[in-house]
Amino acid sequence: MLEVPLDRRDRAPLYRQIAQHLSRMIERGALAPGQKLPSARELASSLGVSRTTANLAYDALEGEGRIRVRGRSGTFVVSRPDGELLVSGGVPLPQPLDLASGEPSPDLLPDPSHLRFLREGLGEGDLSLFAPSPVPGREALRRALVRHAATRGIPARWEDLVVTSGGQEGLCLAFEALKSLGVRRVFFEELTYPDAPRIARGVGLSACPLPFEEAPLVEALGEAGPGDGVYLVPSFHNPTGRTLSMEARKALLERSAARGFWILEDDTYGELRYGETSVPALKALEGSDRVVYVGSFSQVLLPGWRTGYVLAPEAVLGPLCALKALRVGALSSLVQGLVLRFLEGGGLEDALSRNRGVLSHRMRRFREALRNVLGERAPLLPEGGVFLWLDTAPFSGDKARSLLAARGVLVVSGQEFCLRRRTERAVRLCVARLGLRELDEAAGILGTLVGR
Amino acid sequence: MLEVPLDRRDRAPLYRQIAQHLSRMIERGALAPGQKLPSARELASSLGVSRTTANLAYDALEGEGRIRVRGRSGTFVVSRPDGELLVSGGVPLPQPLDLASGEPSPDLLPDPSHLRFLREGLGEGDLSLFAPSPVPGREALRRALVRHAATRGIPARWEDLVVTSGGQEGLCLAFEALKSLGVRRVFFEELTYPDAPRIARGVGLSACPLPFEEAPLVEALGEAGPGDGVYLVPSFHNPTGRTLSMEARKALLERSAARGFWILEDDTYGELRYGETSVPALKALEGSDRVVYVGSFSQVLLPGWRTGYVLAPEAVLGPLCALKALRVGALSSLVQGLVLRFLEGGGLEDALSRNRGVLSHRMRRFREALRNVLGERAPLLPEGGVFLWLDTAPFSGDKARSLLAARGVLVVSGQEFCLRRRTERAVRLCVARLGLRELDEAAGILGTLVGR
Repeated sequence: MLEVPLDRRDRAPLYRQIAQHLSRMIERGALAPGQKLPSARELASSLGVSRTTANLAYDALEGEGRIRVRGRSGTFVVSRPDGELLVSGGVPLPQPLDLASGEPSPDLLPDPSHLRFLREGLGEGDLSLFAPSPVPGREALRRALVRHAATRGIPARWEDLVVTSGGQEGLCLAFEALKSLGVRRVFFEELTYPDAPRIARGVGLSACPLPFEEAPLVEALGEAGPGDGVYLVPSFHNPTGRTLSMEARKALLERSAARGFWILEDDTYGELRYGETSVPALKALEGSDRVVYVGSFSQVLLPGWRTGYVLAPEAVLGPLCALKALRVGALSSLVQGLVLRFLEGGGLEDALSRNRGVLSHRMRRFREALRNVLGERAPLLPEGGVFLWLDTAPFSGDKARSLLAARGVLVVSGQEFCLRRRTERAVRLCVARLGLRELDEAAGILGTLVGR
Repeated sequence: MLEVPLDRRDRAPLYRQIAQHLSRMIERGALAPGQKLPSARELASSLGVSRTTANLAYDALEGEGRIRVRGRSGTFVVSRPDGELLVSGGVPLPQPLDLASGEPSPDLLPDPSHLRFLREGLGEGDLSLFAPSPVPGREALRRALVRHAATRGIPARWEDLVVTSGGQEGLCLAFEALKSLGVRRVFFEELTYPDAPRIARGVGLSACPLPFEEAPLVEALGEAGPGDGVYLVPSFHNPTGRTLSMEARKALLERSAARGFWILEDDTYGELRYGETSVPALKALEGSDRVVYVGSFSQVLLPGWRTGYVLAPEAVLGPLCALKALRVGALSSLVQGLVLRFLEGGGLEDALSRNRGVLSHRMRRFREALRNVLGERAPLLPEGGVFLWLDTAPFSGDKARSLLAARGVLVVSGQEFCLRRRTERAVRLCVARLGLRELDEAAGILGTLVGR
């Protein structure tokens, strides 16, 4: 075990804290030159962080020349004589350019005026912040969230909504509720948010692959039936940024209605539209009676609040609430009360519209910079969200990640999003953490690796 | 489906809101005289509340003469001609005496001075309240909670602690983590907190019975091994109020060390000691390396905050954190930040010591009143907690519950705590919701049912 003190109060992202601490241990000799470090998987498990976080920490250390990954033989502390990249104690190490983390940069968090606003809420002596809440959430908050979901075009009733601890709990409960209704297998796109199939398998469902291209995707569901589910991120897809066309959405819903399979719609990034065309949620369309919608509130704005919601058909709501009662209970009344104030006072809408502006600006600028260095190989501008998918052929995603880390740019290997084992020659780029200049700089370095 | 609007802002407990709404529907004729109502199980599932809550609502309505339970044929709205107990529209219905709910009465919630205290916290513009937290929780809070756990005698390190969304999530993750370490069956006392075996079965473990008496309980574990776990509420047991003796605790730990089985210690009420003798947690004793400790923070004080913690051996922590990352993620940073302020400012210790005083006073007074009407049949005074166990022979717990509800006293039938189907002739009484006079009154009514 390698103990690393983790504390979020200094606002450094988790991977950075791990990297800094290990860097200090290497500097002080607590980790000796040449010493083998635990694998990223072992590190993640012992610290209770995700593998992506552990990988990012190692990438950052590699980018600083502190450690070296020697293929399958493991990860080692760079020995001082060979460590040409090693910066000596007193000089601050360069901060890697982080295109990997989905955590928002500090300027995307609500500003202190919102804290004043919450403070006034507490000032009214509202003891309901201490009292228990019904398992599906308080009525007032559920009503406010349904009004919020209406901005995605969804015509739901407040009784259809359950407040959850982030989107993750929503996914987990939705998969289990579908299982209790007889679902046995769930289809996932070949490239998908990797926790989704992990959760599905964890609750005893089998995960089947779907082609990623629209037409074959819809086609492949021709054989699905009432014992099946489909997990989709239809808007601003993680990891690729792709948005399903309206034609594909309608075809999917028709198939679902005709064949009786369920759709789990993950709309985590749905609020971050930059494009000109309206992109309503699947759940907003006619014939979406078999769609379970999971919203996150909000991944790129309030990541620490852990508030999400599920909008589900009546048949799913019953088992979902029963499971929630048994597993975690209601969301904290404190969070519910403060989220409600944030929504009712317009704080969320303000903050969201500011973030849409900032992120859209970053995305356009970054894509432009990529086009300058990569030409036709640059990814298309997505209609929203925070992700771009970069083809790195002939390098595998893992190799590209490692080469980029050594140049101080952190990305996530495309490999991590593959449903089945195969070699993905791409990496995922995320604009949530970097400012405009850093994005320009990162684009330049990406250009040297995969440029014309 | 029977829709009932639920809102906690008026501070009425959940069952009461349901009862009042149904009462209004009956009054207005929306529910017709003689109409059959959904079973308590159906009602609970459709509203997303616990069965106990649904039962309480029906009991309250029965106590008011609004509905009548006709054995197996179902529950019916009382028809007006026969409804002698029915109070006419204008007259306020008597509030039932609630010895069933574990929710604290409003005077046990923190007072407005604590809200001021939290407000000042927010005033400092601490943006960490918005930022993500590591999955096991923030270091500062984990350190503070370990100091808090020290009041239960536990000598843990902060790295051993994981912050959870209430004790319920803690139980759920602990059972799953033990399962991943090879545990296949878990022993429960014959009378036990019913959600515990429900959760265990839900994650695929089998639930085996343990005798309730101390010596046979320890004896029965002679055959347990590394593939087994034992769930216990050693202090101020739910439902009986019993506290395991130090001899039994030591014997249990010796067996656990010798045979390699795991112990899951639920210490939800452990902080509410009234007795003179120190009752440290099992986890505080020598040889507790195989004890996973679940604390709730705090059931009878901050029920709406949904904050709990798990103290676990290293082997359990890894899988527990990995499961937490996948299932729900970290606890909200907002809750973590405000709980930390509450702890660091001494708010929790103040509120706890006040509540210990209030509840101890209630418990002694109630037990005295019961002794006056029941003599030797009165339960013994427990060493802490909020529960008393009342023998209702010759009536079954279910029958006693129903008879008491008709007299305006709500209790929980002993039946609900039985691990296996058998007839329990007892009910659980809880002092969390009633004031001293109401407790006297309730004791009088209990006396008429099961008196000498």
